[in-house]
Amino acid sequence: MKKKKLKILILHGPNLNLLGGRETGIYGKTTLKEIDALLKKKGKEIGAEVSSFQSNSEGALVEKIQKAAKKFDGIVINPAAYTHTSVALRDAIGAVSIPVVEVHLSNIYQREDFRHHSFVAPVARGQICGFGINSYLLGLTAVVELAMA
Amino acid sequence: MKKKKLKILILHGPNLNLLGGRETGIYGKTTLKEIDALLKKKGKEIGAEVSSFQSNSEGALVEKIQKAAKKFDGIVINPAAYTHTSVALRDAIGAVSIPVVEVHLSNIYQREDFRHHSFVAPVARGQICGFGINSYLLGLTAVVELAMA
Amino acid sequence: MKKKKLKILILHGPNLNLLGGRETGIYGKTTLKEIDALLKKKGKEIGAEVSSFQSNSEGALVEKIQKAAKKFDGIVINPAAYTHTSVALRDAIGAVSIPVVEVHLSNIYQREDFRHHSFVAPVARGQICGFGINSYLLGLTAVVELAMA
Amino acid sequence: MKKKKLKILILHGPNLNLLGGRETGIYGKTTLKEIDALLKKKGKEIGAEVSSFQSNSEGALVEKIQKAAKKFDGIVINPAAYTHTSVALRDAIGAVSIPVVEVHLSNIYQREDFRHHSFVAPVARGQICGFGINSYLLGLTAVVELAMA
Amino acid sequence: MKKKKLKILILHGPNLNLLGGRETGIYGKTTLKEIDALLKKKGKEIGAEVSSFQSNSEGALVEKIQKAAKKFDGIVINPAAYTHTSVALRDAIGAVSIPVVEVHLSNIYQREDFRHHSFVAPVARGQICGFGINSYLLGLTAVVELAMA
Amino acid sequence: MKKKKLKILILHGPNLNLLGGRETGIYGKTTLKEIDALLKKKGKEIGAEVSSFQSNSEGALVEKIQKAAKKFDGIVINPAAYTHTSVALRDAIGAVSIPVVEVHLSNIYQREDFRHHSFVAPVARGQICGFGINSYLLGLTAVVELAMA
Amino acid sequence: MKKKKLKILILHGPNLNLLGGRETGIYGKTTLKEIDALLKKKGKEIGAEVSSFQSNSEGALVEKIQKAAKKFDGIVINPAAYTHTSVALRDAIGAVSIPVVEVHLSNIYQREDFRHHSFVAPVARGQICGFGINSYLLGLTAVVELAMA
Amino acid sequence: MKKKKLKILILHGPNLNLLGGRETGIYGKTTLKEIDALLKKKGKEIGAEVSSFQSNSEGALVEKIQKAAKKFDGIVINPAAYTHTSVALRDAIGAVSIPVVEVHLSNIYQREDFRHHSFVAPVARGQICGFGINSYLLGLTAVVELAMA
Amino acid sequence: MKKKKLKILILHGPNLNLLGGRETGIYGKTTLKEIDALLKKKGKEIGAEVSSFQSNSEGALVEKIQKAAKKFDGIVINPAAYTHTSVALRDAIGAVSIPVVEVHLSNIYQREDFRHHSFVAPVARGQICGFGINSYLLGLTAVVELAMA
Amino acid sequence: MKKKKLKILILHGPNLNLLGGRETGIYGKTTLKEIDALLKKKGKEIGAEVSSFQSNSEGALVEKIQKAAKKFDGIVINPAAYTHTSVALRDAIGAVSIPVVEVHLSNIYQREDFRHHSFVAPVARGQICGFGINSYLLGLTAVVELAMA
Amino acid sequence: MKKKKLKILILHGPNLNLLGGRETGIYGKTTLKEIDALLKKKGKEIGAEVSSFQSNSEGALVEKIQKAAKKFDGIVINPAAYTHTSVALRDAIGAVSIPVVEVHLSNIYQREDFRHHSFVAPVARGQICGFGINSYLLGLTAVVELAMA
Amino acid sequence: MKKKKLKILILHGPNLNLLGGRETGIYGKTTLKEIDALLKKKGKEIGAEVSSFQSNSEGALVEKIQKAAKKFDGIVINPAAYTHTSVALRDAIGAVSIPVVEVHLSNIYQREDFRHHSFVAPVARGQICGFGINSYLLGLTAVVELAMA
Repeated sequence: MKKKKLKILILHGPNLNLLGGRETGIYGKTTLKEIDALLKKKGKEIGAEVSSFQSNSEGALVEKIQKAAKKFDGIVINPAAYTHTSVALRDAIGAVSIPVVEVHLSNIYQREDFRHHSFVAPVARGQICGFGINSYLLGLTAVVELAMA
Repeated sequence: MKKKKLKILILHGPNLNLLGGRETGIYGKTTLKEIDALLKKKGKEIGAEVSSFQSNSEGALVEKIQKAAKKFDGIVINPAAYTHTSVALRDAIGAVSIPVVEVHLSNIYQREDFRHHSFVAPVARGQICGFGINSYLLGLTAVVELAMA
Repeated sequence: MKKKKLKILILHGPNLNLLGGRETGIYGKTTLKEIDALLKKKGKEIGAEVSSFQSNSEGALVEKIQKAAKKFDGIVINPAAYTHTSVALRDAIGAVSIPVVEVHLSNIYQREDFRHHSFVAPVARGQICGFGINSYLLGLTAVVELAMA
Repeated sequence: MKKKKLKILILHGPNLNLLGGRETGIYGKTTLKEIDALLKKKGKEIGAEVSSFQSNSEGALVEKIQKAAKKFDGIVINPAAYTHTSVALRDAIGAVSIPVVEVHLSNIYQREDFRHHSFVAPVARGQICGFGINSYLLGLTAVVELAMA
Repeated sequence: MKKKKLKILILHGPNLNLLGGRETGIYGKTTLKEIDALLKKKGKEIGAEVSSFQSNSEGALVEKIQKAAKKFDGIVINPAAYTHTSVALRDAIGAVSIPVVEVHLSNIYQREDFRHHSFVAPVARGQICGFGINSYLLGLTAVVELAMA
Repeated sequence: MKKKKLKILILHGPNLNLLGGRETGIYGKTTLKEIDALLKKKGKEIGAEVSSFQSNSEGALVEKIQKAAKKFDGIVINPAAYTHTSVALRDAIGAVSIPVVEVHLSNIYQREDFRHHSFVAPVARGQICGFGINSYLLGLTAVVELAMA
Repeated sequence: MKKKKLKILILHGPNLNLLGGRETGIYGKTTLKEIDALLKKKGKEIGAEVSSFQSNSEGALVEKIQKAAKKFDGIVINPAAYTHTSVALRDAIGAVSIPVVEVHLSNIYQREDFRHHSFVAPVARGQICGFGINSYLLGLTAVVELAMA
Repeated sequence: MKKKKLKILILHGPNLNLLGGRETGIYGKTTLKEIDALLKKKGKEIGAEVSSFQSNSEGALVEKIQKAAKKFDGIVINPAAYTHTSVALRDAIGAVSIPVVEVHLSNIYQREDFRHHSFVAPVARGQICGFGINSYLLGLTAVVELAMA
Repeated sequence: MKKKKLKILILHGPNLNLLGGRETGIYGKTTLKEIDALLKKKGKEIGAEVSSFQSNSEGALVEKIQKAAKKFDGIVINPAAYTHTSVALRDAIGAVSIPVVEVHLSNIYQREDFRHHSFVAPVARGQICGFGINSYLLGLTAVVELAMA
Repeated sequence: MKKKKLKILILHGPNLNLLGGRETGIYGKTTLKEIDALLKKKGKEIGAEVSSFQSNSEGALVEKIQKAAKKFDGIVINPAAYTHTSVALRDAIGAVSIPVVEVHLSNIYQREDFRHHSFVAPVARGQICGFGINSYLLGLTAVVELAMA
Repeated sequence: MKKKKLKILILHGPNLNLLGGRETGIYGKTTLKEIDALLKKKGKEIGAEVSSFQSNSEGALVEKIQKAAKKFDGIVINPAAYTHTSVALRDAIGAVSIPVVEVHLSNIYQREDFRHHSFVAPVARGQICGFGINSYLLGLTAVVELAMA
Repeated sequence: MKKKKLKILILHGPNLNLLGGRETGIYGKTTLKEIDALLKKKGKEIGAEVSSFQSNSEGALVEKIQKAAKKFDGIVINPAAYTHTSVALRDAIGAVSIPVVEVHLSNIYQREDFRHHSFVAPVARGQICGFGINSYLLGLTAVVELAMA
């Protein structure tokens, strides 16, 4: 499998801009900025140019996904709270043909019942959760594989 | 029933801006722009001035509805994904006294279970679904009748 | 879209023979006979010959649908109470290849919970509800469009 | 308990900007502006400086809560429709350490079933509902007590 | 309360024509004919002329109810199996203004779960069950009282 | 069927002591005392000596039922609120061998969902509801028939 | 097991009269008439005289079952749509003492959820589904065995 | 709003007599006696004479509410465990016309699922929970406002 | 494990005073008095002084538990009907620190569905059911072990 | 349809090795050995060589199915208890391309609720239940037909 | 009750072989070997010869139960994880006539929801849970009593 | 993070031995043997010695997990069908302290409803699904990271 230069979009959902500053017991001390740097670095290693975007707005995330279809080869998304409530996000992902991988920092199956259901999962290519920052890195690896397939 | 000059607002919910370009198997090849043109044309025939607005943002749609109460005589809304998740949209519609008609391109009762429930339906005057673009045209006819009543 | 001469069957379910005489607060003062006349008139305007049939019997409605497949180009059905309880009606509609449009006078989503579910909706081409007599007229327009497609 | 000078943020969710103008039967005739004035006045009496913010956008409310953590000593929030649908709001409140009090003008337990569940309640310190404008005033009193504790 | 001459219709639902001949352990040995005779006799004592009708057809029962509105002062109905499945019967009863009393020979709350729910109960004036033939006689007494009120 | 002198206990559940004084729109203007007098009078006519007891205490009702087994030939009980919550009442009724008839003034199937379920119904001989005071009188007639059988 | 001459009734529920003409992908190309001929032939081989009856009316099927009790030694029924909705059919079957076998052409457990529940199954002696026409032939064999036992 | 002298009843439900002595981690160290004293003091400040009553008996609480209607201008009730199980309490509150405010020391929405549902809430004027002793004080303030309205 | 002199309270819930006299098929012929005697005797053998209390009143049982905390070293409770309905009993048990053991004469998992859920079980130390009188004796043994630990 | 020599595997699930020795009231007195002999005999008559296998182990049954794909032309399986709990069995059946027929001795729809659901049914070709030993014989006939098709 | 020499089988379900080595916080430090020794010792005291068997295999446990019927006078089983998932175990227990007692070390009603349901409980004679090792000892005492009865 | 030599166990659940030979449309054409080879190769690259084990038996998998605790530094498990039914597997994983990662070839959230729930997920450290063979490779990477942490 020879690797071509790929463009990958990392999407961070609501409240992820708080990472590293609060609830470090659950989410760790790494900031979102640091995560993005790690992803860029990892991307370079596996031949992918990584861009990141965070928003607390469902509509903004929907639009970013819509536009990504033409500019990117794949998306890694941590939909955070919108995982469980957003059909709009689901429909946006369902409408783009590039591979989308869903990731979560925490193991959502160890948390409240309403976090066990994802509107995104059935339209994503796959789901990775529970590995902290590594969920993102594994997701990046996964989406690159899918984009190259 | 003599017809007076009416102003009707057409509201398109999230991801409908993608119409015509993607998933044409489900939604057809007509673009949103073309739908709006057809609605304007139909409006003229039945004595209504038609304006259109699309947004991927729940809040933006809520505000458009709030303001429509004073400027328009009726609303045709395709709430798309927000049909199934937005109490805010429901409350906005419940708060305006002009008639609101809910339309859907596809037959939502043939799709996933979560699409069978509409938060909007109980506050809309009526619902029309499954007729593709014609759902909008029938909705426009319906709202004009209601606005003239 | 040039219009050809079409034959459309209007089917009225149980208790609709009472229209106009009772519960006029909910269903209006128009009798079923008057509705049928309005439909015939509308049919003429849009190039369709309209026949009507009412029955309180599930089996009679099933048979009417079965036979309609060869004689008519489309069906507009208000299944009334059988909407919520009749799999037989659903199967009959599922077995005919002409387009079937489901209509309701009232907005069934504003009424008792058991009226929110329709066995017919997933096999109908589309559903129109909440517009009183106009539901029928819009349904006729819709089915004519579908039959001509 | 000696009182210190506190800064309290009042957050109003979607459609609350319509207060006083519509549905006065349910929500009373007082406008949001008047409510904010009453809250400012009450705040002065109990030693709190009160700021208010209304938005119809889930994301905007989320961001206001995130930023409030550093500028305010407490939040009184009427999440309105987002009470029942927003995990993002819940997560934002769960991420701030200042006390948050949930208030509702109406008694949500006398309304539709879907309004009986609050995503916010388990992360708020307490909930006050059913007292009209007084829900806000009681909420302000409550959050001031909590902030001083 | 002076008694006027009243006309009461007794409606027997599906399978009740078998009474007395089968499952006498549950339903007793009295035939439907004998029950009708007892009702006629009881009717005479309390000033009511009693007519009876049994059908295994939902539609036939619906039509009997529709027509009863003009000819009778009250209905005692044992909807039998249709109690649990017929919205059509419910709608027919809801459409007539004369009092309707629901009766059952057996105590339906001691039987299968699906027999605990009655579509008829919410539109009947009252329900009497569990007293065997006496359920009918008590129902006749009750409906006569209601008709005279 | 020759009638013997029977002793019947009428049991009134919680809040029924308020009858006639409050919520007369729902429950009528007759007081509990007047109902008891009507029952005594009716009892005399059909050969039964009637005693009445009201309590707001679940335990007191349980004990009254336990003791009734030896002193009475039948019980007519309106368990009111305890209908829907008391397994203790159910067990007490299940433990006595004299016939017990459950009555309700209002049609419980027209009220809140939680009032549709009765813990008492499966252990009572039959249920009568919706006829106002007449529910009691019919219940008395029914229990006398059962006690004489 | 020596075989005696038996009379078996085959009952076909709603829409089965359409067999062979429509939806041949699901139900095959054999007509109901051909199925009946195959059953008569098979009956002869195993010593049973076979009669068939199809109806789209629930009431007509109920009555056929009631009368069959005296004329036939067993029933093979394909209740089709009424499988899932008819308590009346269930009660009729429960009231006859001859063996009744439930058959389905398709495997109902591979279809919509509402088709997984049968009101008939608990009162039938057994159920056979999924074998196309062979379901009927196996059902005939089964009912003959039961009738001879 | 001029204040008149009001009489307010404070009702404490089951196990609240244990306050201050046990589970101080959850409920704090203040005893019920001290809470009553704080309420009397607060009452004086806002022009209300406060009486308190605690009972572990559902029936006793029901009777206290019934009698309060004539002696008091408002009730603050912490129904404790009966919140979730007592229809009798609900009916008693529903029967009195003076305002009733429901309060809880803890945030019931952070506890077991069965504590999220209150039978009392829909008949109370409003609900206040999660503020410890302050829930009572805010409830007293609220009920005084309602009684004066 | 050396044994010290322990005081154990046996609590019998509603309708258990009827034991031995009624429904002996289910509950056996031993009276409550005899059970208490057996428990006292068993207590002596294992070094425990046993006291018993039966009540049909939820409130009385709650109070007995509250007071037991200071006088007894452990409680064996058969909550009977209140097992399934009493949050008050649960809260009382949750508030005492001495060990509480829940026992049932019958195997509650072989009975009606509503008897499968116990509000008491999660706050009791353990549950023993199905062994008739022996459930009490085993429960006494168990609580003595716990009290000595 | 000319018959070729077929090899059919009969699979018996857990506890079926006990047949004939226990619970003969439900399952009859025939032993599994005798059933296998009857199946072999029946097989000979219809041109099939029959092999049988019983196991109480889910894994052993899974492996037998996996291997059967290459050695047999069809499988008749009575999954017994694993019917209701084994996704592994379902997946094994779903993975083999030879026809699989599910049989049950008893009518599972007359038994406990959890026995009404079969994980196997949707992947089997058809289901036969309620005919005792004859279920196996009919199943053998059915699978032979399918294997020859 | 004179005691005869009894043979009792102790069955330990999956993962119980790990006892004492892991999760000692929940399950204590006693190993399974030590528990078996305690049971043997206790058995001697009460006249029972105790054998033990542990397996992680559902099928192996099923077979052990089947064979126990002839060799043992009673079974004490801790089905562990299979409590909640094994119908096979339930059927095996239902098929043996010797008494079976279900025990659990922990209080399963204080753990995850899926552990609140036992497939075994309705076929066991009784259930004992929450007393740690003592659950086994009490279970042994209970089964000996049952075996001697 | 310097890498030490780690031993990782790969566990394959039921029916995975069929991989590559059947249902290649869903699961691909790679055999389990080839997957294991890829994992060994990947392991070498990231400093881990990889062993593999497949079983169709729940008990065998449970025992492999129990023993792995002492021999391995981490487990990657694809529990296949047992994901959805095995509490025993869950308990085994919960009992070992080495990190366990759950993987699935397919996206289980796009399949039948019963496959959306995993008993394993809440006790695994994380879950990876939907990436085909890559799910295993990502899982190996993830568990190595966890084992080194």
